[in-house]
Amino acid sequence: MKREHQISNQVIKRLPRYYRFLGELSAKGIVKISSQHLAELMGITASQIRQDLNCFGGFGQQGYGYNTSALQAEIGKILGLDTIKNVIIIGAGNLGKAILSGMHFNKRGFEAIGIFDSSEKVIGTSVAGLTVQSMDELPGFCKKNNVAVAVLCIPSTTLRETCETIIDLGIKGIWNFSHGDLSDFKDKAVIENVHLGDSLAALGYNLK
Amino acid sequence: MKREHQISNQVIKRLPRYYRFLGELSAKGIVKISSQHLAELMGITASQIRQDLNCFGGFGQQGYGYNTSALQAEIGKILGLDTIKNVIIIGAGNLGKAILSGMHFNKRGFEAIGIFDSSEKVIGTSVAGLTVQSMDELPGFCKKNNVAVAVLCIPSTTLRETCETIIDLGIKGIWNFSHGDLSDFKDKAVIENVHLGDSLAALGYNLK
Repeated sequence: MKREHQISNQVIKRLPRYYRFLGELSAKGIVKISSQHLAELMGITASQIRQDLNCFGGFGQQGYGYNTSALQAEIGKILGLDTIKNVIIIGAGNLGKAILSGMHFNKRGFEAIGIFDSSEKVIGTSVAGLTVQSMDELPGFCKKNNVAVAVLCIPSTTLRETCETIIDLGIKGIWNFSHGDLSDFKDKAVIENVHLGDSLAALGYNLK
Repeated sequence: MKREHQISNQVIKRLPRYYRFLGELSAKGIVKISSQHLAELMGITASQIRQDLNCFGGFGQQGYGYNTSALQAEIGKILGLDTIKNVIIIGAGNLGKAILSGMHFNKRGFEAIGIFDSSEKVIGTSVAGLTVQSMDELPGFCKKNNVAVAVLCIPSTTLRETCETIIDLGIKGIWNFSHGDLSDFKDKAVIENVHLGDSLAALGYNLK
């Protein structure tokens, strides 16, 4: 992949959106699309699209546009969707269950292989085909399995402690749904925070 | 509020983060903070902070810094947190239940007043103090209550249809957790999409 090392984080955050739109177009049988048309669909400018895709070599042909499925596949490769990464969920409350049942990890280059909780109430119950395990079983599980990502769906009171535990167990990726600041763990793991509150606040502002 | 009309959407999206950090500082008893220090904590530049806050008049004093609680309150006003907006949840599956139980709407300028589902299995059950109502009851409910926002936690197959229904009922804000493109509803409602898949994909990329 040409010049991939230069891709900024802002462009990376837009790639999944290209991937999604191109997948929808391809599923509808649309084989090629111009940057103008794609821009209209996505609510951005054609110039933005050309700039973004040029970051990793560009895929369009002047006067032809982009081949939807080829471009989607290429973006998928850049995003690492062709390499399966094992995921575990920490916290089997409503949110943990919703993430495990609804995220279609296997369509996104991930495989959910375990779910853990510390509450006796849920340990042993089944969620989306997986049995909720005790947090005590986590170290042994991580030794046997190559876990790349932990999804944190836990109370904020146990967030930092859990974070330390999973980093000590060698997990390098954290997808954090819990409230709390993990910025001082940034050197030890890749952290992606989902701040639903920020999204809700933006909605509130735009409603005014 | 000075110059508020000029605030770009990008700045708006950053305001909740300022609000959150300032709240945490204030809760820790920190009364004032310099833009340099706040920038370090937030992982952005001091110049970015000054630019952002200048968009609505600026609140800092040269050589003093920002008063954490006053600035937080001001940002809260800008975000409309001082005006309570009624919210309903559509879809009482795991995700709908997680959002209703975990979002602390009342701390964010919202009040959750209803949850609806079309499945007989969940209608009548209780979630976080609210009884799940049938979708058939939605029109009557919206007539009696001033509903500002609908949170969509439904299968993508019913997304567009549900969106049309709630817009027809006069709901102006949509917080969408379902997969699917709602861009053609943008003229009729304020739509905030939560694309968890994009967040997960960015994590996958950064893990490489």
